[in-house]
Amino acid sequence: MKIYDISLPIACDMPVYKGKPDKRPVLSVASDFTIGPVYESKLEMNLHTGTHLDAALHIFPGGGTIDKIPLTSVVNKCSVLDLRQVTEKITAADLAVRPIAGGDFVLLKTRNSYEQILEGQFIYLTGGGAEYLVNCGVAGAGIDALGIERNQPGHPAHRLLLGAGLPVLEGLNLKEPPAGRYLLVAAPLNIIGAEAAPVRALLLPLPKEWQCLE
Amino acid sequence: MKIYDISLPIACDMPVYKGKPDKRPVLSVASDFTIGPVYESKLEMNLHTGTHLDAALHIFPGGGTIDKIPLTSVVNKCSVLDLRQVTEKITAADLAVRPIAGGDFVLLKTRNSYEQILEGQFIYLTGGGAEYLVNCGVAGAGIDALGIERNQPGHPAHRLLLGAGLPVLEGLNLKEPPAGRYLLVAAPLNIIGAEAAPVRALLLPLPKEWQCLE
Ligand SMILES: [Zn+2]
Ligand SMILES: [Zn+2]
Repeated sequence: MKIYDISLPIACDMPVYKGKPDKRPVLSVASDFTIGPVYESKLEMNLHTGTHLDAALHIFPGGGTIDKIPLTSVVNKCSVLDLRQVTEKITAADLAVRPIAGGDFVLLKTRNSYEQILEGQFIYLTGGGAEYLVNCGVAGAGIDALGIERNQPGHPAHRLLLGAGLPVLEGLNLKEPPAGRYLLVAAPLNIIGAEAAPVRALLLPLPKEWQCLE
Repeated sequence: MKIYDISLPIACDMPVYKGKPDKRPVLSVASDFTIGPVYESKLEMNLHTGTHLDAALHIFPGGGTIDKIPLTSVVNKCSVLDLRQVTEKITAADLAVRPIAGGDFVLLKTRNSYEQILEGQFIYLTGGGAEYLVNCGVAGAGIDALGIERNQPGHPAHRLLLGAGLPVLEGLNLKEPPAGRYLLVAAPLNIIGAEAAPVRALLLPLPKEWQCLE
Protein backbone atom coordinates (compact mmCIF):
# COMPACT_ATOMS: atom_id res chain seq x y z
CA MET A 1 0.00 0.00 0.00
CA LYS A 2 1.54 3.28 -1.15
CA ILE A 3 1.25 6.04 1.47
CA TYR A 4 1.91 9.62 0.38
CA ASP A 5 2.97 11.92 3.18
CA ILE A 6 1.66 15.33 2.09
CA SER A 7 2.73 17.15 5.27
CA LEU A 8 5.56 19.60 5.85
CA PRO A 9 8.16 18.47 8.39
CA ILE A 10 8.07 20.58 11.57
CA ALA A 11 11.43 22.20 12.32
CA CYS A 12 12.75 25.58 13.40
CA ASP A 13 13.98 26.33 9.86
CA MET A 14 10.77 25.30 8.07
CA PRO A 15 8.99 27.77 5.78
CA VAL A 16 6.37 29.81 7.64
CA TYR A 17 3.63 32.18 6.44
CA LYS A 18 5.32 35.28 4.98
CA GLY A 19 8.44 34.35 6.96
CA LYS A 20 6.95 35.73 10.19
CA PRO A 21 9.23 34.86 13.16
CA ASP A 22 6.29 34.28 15.55
CA LYS A 23 5.12 31.47 13.25
CA ARG A 24 8.32 29.45 13.85
CA PRO A 25 7.93 26.38 16.06
CA VAL A 26 10.09 26.16 19.19
CA LEU A 27 11.13 22.70 20.37
CA SER A 28 12.77 22.72 23.79
CA VAL A 29 14.06 20.07 26.17
CA ALA A 30 11.75 19.41 29.13
CA SER A 31 13.96 16.69 30.63
CA ASP A 32 17.05 14.89 29.36
CA PHE A 33 19.35 12.05 30.39
CA THR A 34 21.46 14.34 32.60
CA ILE A 35 18.37 14.88 34.80
CA GLY A 36 16.60 11.54 34.67
CA PRO A 37 16.05 8.25 32.86
CA VAL A 38 13.92 9.66 30.03
CA TYR A 39 14.19 12.38 27.40
CA GLU A 40 11.19 14.66 26.91
CA SER A 41 10.59 17.73 24.78
CA LYS A 42 8.05 20.51 24.70
CA LEU A 43 6.69 22.14 21.54
CA GLU A 44 5.46 25.72 21.29
CA MET A 45 3.75 26.45 18.00
CA ASN A 46 1.25 28.77 16.35
CA LEU A 47 -1.62 26.58 15.15
CA HIS A 48 -1.19 27.91 11.58
CA THR A 49 2.39 26.70 11.29
CA GLY A 50 3.07 23.90 8.83
CA THR A 51 0.33 21.55 7.69
CA HIS A 52 -2.90 22.49 9.46
CA LEU A 53 -6.66 22.63 9.18
CA ASP A 54 -8.61 25.89 9.61
CA ALA A 55 -12.08 26.01 11.19
CA ALA A 56 -14.61 28.85 10.88
CA LEU A 57 -13.48 30.61 14.09
CA HIS A 58 -10.25 31.55 12.28
CA ILE A 59 -12.25 34.15 10.31
CA PHE A 60 -15.71 34.44 11.87
CA PRO A 61 -16.20 35.71 15.46
CA GLY A 62 -18.11 32.97 17.29
CA GLY A 63 -17.44 30.56 14.40
CA GLY A 64 -17.10 26.78 14.67
CA THR A 65 -14.01 25.27 16.25
CA ILE A 66 -11.66 22.53 15.07
CA ASP A 67 -13.03 19.91 17.49
CA LYS A 68 -16.46 20.19 15.81
CA ILE A 69 -15.30 19.32 12.29
CA PRO A 70 -16.77 15.91 11.40
CA LEU A 71 -14.05 13.30 10.84
CA THR A 72 -15.92 12.12 7.76
CA SER A 73 -15.11 15.38 5.98
CA VAL A 74 -11.34 15.03 6.47
CA VAL A 75 -11.08 11.24 6.25
CA ASN A 76 -12.64 11.20 2.85
CA LYS A 77 -12.44 10.62 -0.85
CA CYS A 78 -10.19 13.21 -2.35
CA SER A 79 -9.32 14.67 -5.76
CA VAL A 80 -5.81 16.02 -6.32
CA LEU A 81 -5.96 18.60 -9.14
CA ASP A 82 -2.84 19.42 -11.17
CA LEU A 83 -2.62 23.23 -11.33
CA ARG A 84 1.09 23.51 -12.01
CA GLN A 85 0.41 25.60 -15.12
CA VAL A 86 -1.09 28.39 -13.03
CA THR A 87 1.45 31.19 -12.60
CA GLU A 88 -0.15 33.49 -10.03
CA LYS A 89 -3.61 32.59 -8.72
CA ILE A 90 -6.20 29.86 -9.20
CA THR A 91 -9.46 31.10 -10.74
CA ALA A 92 -12.83 29.48 -11.41
CA ALA A 93 -11.75 29.10 -15.07
CA ASP A 94 -8.68 27.11 -14.03
CA LEU A 95 -10.85 24.77 -11.96
CA ALA A 96 -13.67 24.40 -14.51
CA VAL A 97 -11.43 22.44 -16.93
CA ARG A 98 -10.35 19.92 -14.31
CA PRO A 99 -12.24 16.89 -12.93
CA ILE A 100 -13.85 17.47 -9.52
CA ALA A 101 -16.04 14.76 -7.99
CA GLY A 102 -18.82 16.26 -5.83
CA GLY A 103 -18.38 15.22 -2.21
CA ASP A 104 -14.61 14.89 -2.61
CA PHE A 105 -12.14 16.91 -0.61
CA VAL A 106 -10.19 18.84 -3.27
CA LEU A 107 -6.43 19.40 -3.07
CA LEU A 108 -4.82 22.05 -5.28
CA LYS A 109 -1.35 21.01 -6.44
CA THR A 110 0.63 23.99 -7.72
CA ARG A 111 4.15 25.23 -8.40
CA ASN A 112 4.34 25.90 -4.64
CA SER A 113 5.29 22.25 -4.15
CA TYR A 114 8.26 22.61 -6.51
CA GLU A 115 9.71 26.09 -6.05
CA GLN A 116 11.06 27.98 -3.05
CA ILE A 117 8.15 30.43 -2.95
CA LEU A 118 6.21 29.41 0.16
CA GLU A 119 7.28 32.49 2.13
CA GLY A 120 6.94 34.85 -0.85
CA GLN A 121 4.85 35.11 -4.01
CA PHE A 122 3.10 31.76 -3.66
CA ILE A 123 0.18 30.60 -5.81
CA TYR A 124 -3.20 31.10 -4.11
CA LEU A 125 -6.94 30.62 -4.59
CA THR A 126 -9.15 33.54 -5.64
CA GLY A 127 -12.60 34.24 -4.21
CA GLY A 128 -14.06 33.19 -7.56
CA GLY A 129 -12.16 29.91 -7.38
CA ALA A 130 -13.43 29.31 -3.85
CA GLU A 131 -17.00 30.04 -4.92
CA TYR A 132 -16.65 27.57 -7.80
CA LEU A 133 -15.50 24.85 -5.36
CA VAL A 134 -18.41 25.54 -2.99
CA ASN A 135 -20.83 25.25 -5.93
CA CYS A 136 -19.25 21.92 -6.92
CA GLY A 137 -20.28 20.52 -3.53
CA VAL A 138 -16.77 19.66 -2.38
CA ALA A 139 -16.20 18.50 1.22
CA GLY A 140 -13.28 20.86 1.79
CA ALA A 141 -10.29 22.40 0.06
CA GLY A 142 -6.55 22.16 0.54
CA ILE A 143 -3.51 23.78 -1.02
CA ASP A 144 0.27 23.47 -1.02
CA ALA A 145 0.67 27.00 0.36
CA LEU A 146 0.86 28.15 3.98
CA GLY A 147 -2.29 30.19 3.36
CA ILE A 148 -4.99 29.46 0.81
CA GLU A 149 -4.94 33.15 -0.15
CA ARG A 150 -2.40 35.94 -0.29
CA ASN A 151 -3.12 39.64 0.29
CA GLN A 152 -6.73 39.43 -0.85
CA PRO A 153 -8.74 42.17 0.93
CA GLY A 154 -11.43 40.65 3.15
CA HIS A 155 -10.06 37.09 2.83
CA PRO A 156 -12.69 35.98 0.27
CA ALA A 157 -11.36 32.43 -0.20
CA HIS A 158 -11.39 31.74 3.56
CA ARG A 159 -14.80 33.44 3.94
CA LEU A 160 -16.47 31.53 1.13
CA LEU A 161 -15.10 28.11 2.10
CA LEU A 162 -15.35 28.36 5.90
CA GLY A 163 -18.66 30.24 5.59
CA ALA A 164 -20.06 27.26 3.66
CA GLY A 165 -18.90 24.93 6.44
CA LEU A 166 -15.93 23.58 4.47
CA PRO A 167 -12.65 23.12 6.32
CA VAL A 168 -9.49 24.52 4.73
CA LEU A 169 -6.30 22.45 4.71
CA GLU A 170 -3.14 24.55 4.39
CA GLY A 171 0.60 23.91 4.33
CA LEU A 172 0.46 20.74 2.22
CA ASN A 173 3.35 19.35 0.19
CA LEU A 174 1.87 17.89 -2.99
CA LYS A 175 5.09 17.28 -4.92
CA GLU A 176 4.89 13.50 -4.80
CA PRO A 177 1.27 12.46 -5.53
CA PRO A 178 0.14 12.67 -9.17
CA ALA A 179 -3.28 14.16 -9.93
CA GLY A 180 -6.03 11.63 -9.25
CA ARG A 181 -8.28 10.20 -6.59
CA TYR A 182 -7.18 9.03 -3.17
CA LEU A 183 -8.33 8.43 0.37
CA LEU A 184 -7.37 11.59 2.26
CA VAL A 185 -6.59 11.16 5.96
CA ALA A 186 -6.24 14.62 7.45
CA ALA A 187 -7.73 14.48 10.95
CA PRO A 188 -6.43 17.43 12.99
CA LEU A 189 -5.21 17.28 16.57
CA ASN A 190 -8.42 17.51 18.56
CA ILE A 191 -7.73 20.79 20.38
CA ILE A 192 -10.93 21.78 22.16
CA GLY A 193 -12.09 25.28 21.30
CA ALA A 194 -9.27 26.06 18.84
CA GLU A 195 -9.68 27.79 15.47
CA ALA A 196 -7.17 25.47 13.76
CA ALA A 197 -4.91 22.50 14.48
CA PRO A 198 -1.84 20.77 13.08
CA VAL A 199 -2.43 17.73 10.88
CA ARG A 200 -0.22 14.89 9.65
CA ALA A 201 -1.94 14.65 6.29
CA LEU A 202 -1.69 11.47 4.22
CA LEU A 203 -3.02 10.15 0.93
CA LEU A 204 -3.76 6.42 0.70
CA PRO A 205 -5.03 4.43 -2.25
CA LEU A 206 -8.84 4.64 -2.38
CA PRO A 207 -10.05 1.06 -1.74
CA LYS A 208 -12.46 -0.17 -4.44
CA GLU A 209 -15.10 -0.96 -1.83
CA TRP A 210 -15.04 2.68 -0.63
CA GLN A 211 -15.18 4.41 -4.00
CA CYS A 212 -18.94 4.77 -4.00
CA LEU A 213 -19.29 5.50 -0.28
CA GLU A 214 -21.15 8.62 0.74
CA MET B 1 -17.48 3.95 6.73
CA LYS B 2 -17.29 3.87 10.52
CA ILE B 3 -14.39 5.91 11.89
CA TYR B 4 -13.38 5.38 15.51
CA ASP B 5 -11.57 8.32 17.06
CA ILE B 6 -9.28 6.72 19.65
CA SER B 7 -7.59 9.96 20.69
CA LEU B 8 -7.97 12.03 23.86
CA PRO B 9 -9.26 15.57 23.32
CA ILE B 10 -6.59 18.19 24.07
CA ALA B 11 -7.73 20.67 26.72
CA CYS B 12 -6.31 22.31 29.83
CA ASP B 13 -8.37 20.03 32.09
CA MET B 14 -7.51 16.76 30.31
CA PRO B 15 -5.94 13.90 32.28
CA VAL B 16 -2.13 14.02 32.21
CA TYR B 17 0.53 11.54 33.32
CA LYS B 18 0.40 11.27 37.12
CA GLY B 19 -1.41 14.64 37.16
CA LYS B 20 1.87 16.53 36.65
CA PRO B 21 1.14 20.25 36.07
CA ASP B 22 3.97 20.62 33.50
CA LYS B 23 2.21 18.04 31.32
CA ARG B 24 -0.87 20.28 30.90
CA PRO B 25 -1.28 21.91 27.49
CA VAL B 26 -1.49 25.69 27.33
CA LEU B 27 -3.57 27.23 24.55
CA SER B 28 -3.17 31.00 24.27
CA VAL B 29 -4.43 33.68 21.91
CA ALA B 30 -1.82 34.89 19.41
CA SER B 31 -4.17 37.32 17.69
CA ASP B 32 -7.90 37.96 17.97
CA PHE B 33 -10.60 40.06 16.32
CA THR B 34 -9.83 43.07 18.53
CA ILE B 35 -6.35 43.23 16.91
CA GLY B 36 -7.01 42.13 13.34
CA PRO B 37 -9.25 40.28 10.89
CA VAL B 38 -8.28 36.76 11.98
CA TYR B 39 -8.17 34.73 15.16
CA GLU B 40 -5.04 32.68 15.84
CA SER B 41 -3.90 30.59 18.80
CA LYS B 42 -0.64 29.16 20.00
CA LEU B 43 -0.24 25.79 21.71
CA GLU B 44 2.47 24.92 24.22
CA MET B 45 2.57 21.23 25.05
CA ASN B 46 4.85 18.50 26.35
CA LEU B 47 5.12 15.91 23.58
CA HIS B 48 3.93 13.17 25.98
CA THR B 49 0.62 14.88 26.68
CA GLY B 50 -2.51 13.18 25.40
CA THR B 51 -2.40 10.71 22.54
CA HIS B 52 1.20 10.43 21.31
CA LEU B 53 3.78 8.13 19.81
CA ASP B 54 7.13 7.44 21.51
CA ALA B 55 10.35 6.86 19.55
CA ALA B 56 13.54 5.24 20.86
CA LEU B 57 15.17 8.55 21.86
CA HIS B 58 12.61 8.81 24.67
CA ILE B 59 14.53 6.08 26.54
CA PHE B 60 17.83 5.49 24.72
CA PRO B 61 20.49 8.23 24.47
CA GLY B 62 21.16 8.71 20.75
CA GLY B 63 18.07 6.64 19.91
CA GLY B 64 15.88 7.03 16.83
CA THR B 65 13.59 10.03 16.50
CA ILE B 66 9.91 10.31 15.63
CA ASP B 67 10.54 11.56 12.07
CA LYS B 68 12.33 8.28 11.27
CA ILE B 69 9.43 5.97 12.13
CA PRO B 70 8.18 4.40 8.89
CA LEU B 71 4.60 5.40 8.12
CA THR B 72 3.86 1.79 7.23
CA SER B 73 4.28 0.77 10.87
CA VAL B 74 1.66 3.25 12.13
CA VAL B 75 -0.71 3.17 9.15
CA ASN B 76 -1.17 -0.52 9.45
CA LYS B 77 -3.33 -3.50 10.19
CA CYS B 78 -4.17 -3.52 13.85
CA SER B 79 -5.53 -5.88 16.51
CA VAL B 80 -7.50 -4.42 19.40
CA LEU B 81 -7.28 -6.84 22.36
CA ASP B 82 -9.92 -6.82 25.09
CA LEU B 83 -8.06 -6.80 28.42
CA ARG B 84 -10.82 -5.32 30.56
CA GLN B 85 -10.62 -8.30 32.93
CA VAL B 86 -7.09 -7.35 33.95
CA THR B 87 -7.14 -5.60 37.31
CA GLU B 88 -3.59 -4.31 37.73
CA LYS B 89 -1.06 -5.11 34.99
CA ILE B 90 -0.95 -6.95 31.67
CA THR B 91 1.31 -10.00 31.70
CA ALA B 92 2.47 -12.43 29.00
CA ALA B 93 -0.14 -14.90 30.29
CA ASP B 94 -2.92 -12.36 29.71
CA LEU B 95 -1.74 -11.84 26.14
CA ALA B 96 -1.13 -15.51 25.32
CA VAL B 97 -4.86 -16.33 25.45
CA ARG B 98 -5.82 -13.55 23.02
CA PRO B 99 -5.54 -13.47 19.21
CA ILE B 100 -2.53 -11.48 17.92
CA ALA B 101 -1.79 -11.43 14.19
CA GLY B 102 1.97 -11.15 13.52
CA GLY B 103 2.73 -7.88 11.75
CA ASP B 104 -0.26 -6.14 13.31
CA PHE B 105 0.03 -3.10 15.52
CA VAL B 106 -1.50 -4.24 18.83
CA LEU B 107 -3.73 -2.02 20.96
CA LEU B 108 -4.42 -2.95 24.58
CA LYS B 109 -7.95 -2.04 25.65
CA THR B 110 -8.28 -2.00 29.43
CA ARG B 111 -10.37 -0.62 32.27
CA ASN B 112 -8.44 2.62 31.79
CA SER B 113 -10.88 3.53 29.01
CA TYR B 114 -13.83 3.19 31.38
CA GLU B 115 -12.73 4.37 34.80
CA GLN B 116 -11.28 7.64 36.10
CA ILE B 117 -7.85 6.14 36.80
CA LEU B 118 -5.64 7.68 34.09
CA GLU B 119 -3.80 9.93 36.56
CA GLY B 120 -3.63 7.27 39.26
CA GLN B 121 -3.46 3.48 39.52
CA PHE B 122 -3.90 2.80 35.80
CA ILE B 123 -3.48 -0.61 34.16
CA TYR B 124 -0.05 -1.01 32.54
CA LEU B 125 2.08 -3.48 30.57
CA THR B 126 4.75 -5.56 32.32
CA GLY B 127 8.21 -6.26 30.89
CA GLY B 128 7.13 -9.86 30.39
CA GLY B 129 4.09 -8.69 28.45
CA ALA B 130 6.26 -6.44 26.28
CA GLU B 131 8.67 -9.29 25.59
CA TYR B 132 5.76 -11.50 24.57
CA LEU B 133 4.57 -8.87 22.07
CA VAL B 134 8.06 -8.46 20.60
CA ASN B 135 8.27 -12.25 20.15
CA CYS B 136 4.88 -12.24 18.38
CA GLY B 137 6.38 -9.98 15.72
CA VAL B 138 3.97 -7.11 16.25
CA ALA B 139 4.57 -3.79 14.45
CA GLY B 140 4.08 -1.69 17.57
CA ALA B 141 2.04 -1.48 20.76
CA GLY B 142 -0.48 0.96 22.11
CA ILE B 143 -2.44 1.33 25.31
CA ASP B 144 -5.26 3.41 26.78
CA ALA B 145 -2.97 4.79 29.50
CA LEU B 146 -0.84 7.93 29.43
CA GLY B 147 2.20 5.71 29.91
CA ILE B 148 2.56 2.08 28.84
CA GLU B 149 4.10 1.34 32.24
CA ARG B 150 3.80 2.65 35.77
CA ASN B 151 6.59 2.76 38.35
CA GLN B 152 8.47 -0.20 36.89
CA PRO B 153 12.18 0.22 37.73
CA GLY B 154 14.25 0.57 34.53
CA HIS B 155 11.20 1.05 32.29
CA PRO B 156 11.27 -2.55 30.94
CA ALA B 157 8.17 -2.22 28.70
CA HIS B 158 9.54 0.89 26.97
CA ARG B 159 13.02 -0.64 26.74
CA LEU B 160 11.87 -3.93 25.24
CA LEU B 161 9.48 -2.40 22.70
CA LEU B 162 11.52 0.65 21.64
CA GLY B 163 14.72 -1.42 21.79
CA ALA B 164 13.20 -3.81 19.26
CA GLY B 165 12.37 -0.86 16.99
CA LEU B 166 8.66 -0.90 17.81
CA PRO B 167 6.94 2.45 18.35
CA VAL B 168 4.77 2.87 21.46
CA LEU B 169 1.39 4.58 21.19
CA GLU B 170 0.17 6.06 24.48
CA GLY B 171 -2.82 8.06 25.66
CA LEU B 172 -5.43 6.21 23.60
CA ASN B 173 -9.13 6.09 24.37
CA LEU B 174 -10.35 2.60 23.46
CA LYS B 175 -13.82 2.74 24.99
CA GLU B 176 -15.69 2.71 21.71
CA PRO B 177 -14.06 0.12 19.41
CA PRO B 178 -14.81 -3.55 20.18
CA ALA B 179 -11.94 -6.06 20.11
CA GLY B 180 -11.09 -7.01 16.53
CA ARG B 181 -9.08 -6.04 13.48
CA TYR B 182 -8.94 -2.56 11.97
CA LEU B 183 -6.86 -0.25 9.86
CA LEU B 184 -4.93 1.89 12.35
CA VAL B 185 -4.02 5.39 11.23
CA ALA B 186 -1.69 6.86 13.83
CA ALA B 187 0.86 8.96 11.95
CA PRO B 188 2.51 11.39 14.40
CA LEU B 189 3.19 15.07 13.73
CA ASN B 190 6.49 14.97 11.85
CA ILE B 191 8.62 16.89 14.35
CA ILE B 192 12.20 16.64 13.18
CA GLY B 193 14.56 15.30 15.85
CA ALA B 194 11.89 14.79 18.52
CA GLU B 195 11.60 11.77 20.82
CA ALA B 196 7.78 11.70 20.54
CA ALA B 197 4.89 13.52 18.87
CA PRO B 198 1.16 14.02 19.25
CA VAL B 199 -1.10 11.84 17.10
CA ARG B 200 -4.76 12.00 16.12
CA ALA B 201 -5.23 8.24 16.15
CA LEU B 202 -8.09 6.63 14.25
CA LEU B 203 -9.37 3.15 13.54
CA LEU B 204 -11.01 2.51 10.16
CA PRO B 205 -12.56 -0.67 8.83
CA LEU B 206 -9.83 -2.85 7.30
CA PRO B 207 -10.65 -3.02 3.57
CA LYS B 208 -10.84 -6.60 2.26
CA GLU B 209 -8.23 -5.87 -0.39
CA TRP B 210 -5.74 -4.81 2.30
CA GLN B 211 -6.21 -7.69 4.73
CA CYS B 212 -3.37 -9.77 3.33
CA LEU B 213 -1.04 -6.83 2.62
CA GLU B 214 2.45 -6.94 4.03
ZN1 LIG C 1 -4.53 28.70 8.71
ZN1 LIG D 1 5.41 8.93 25.99
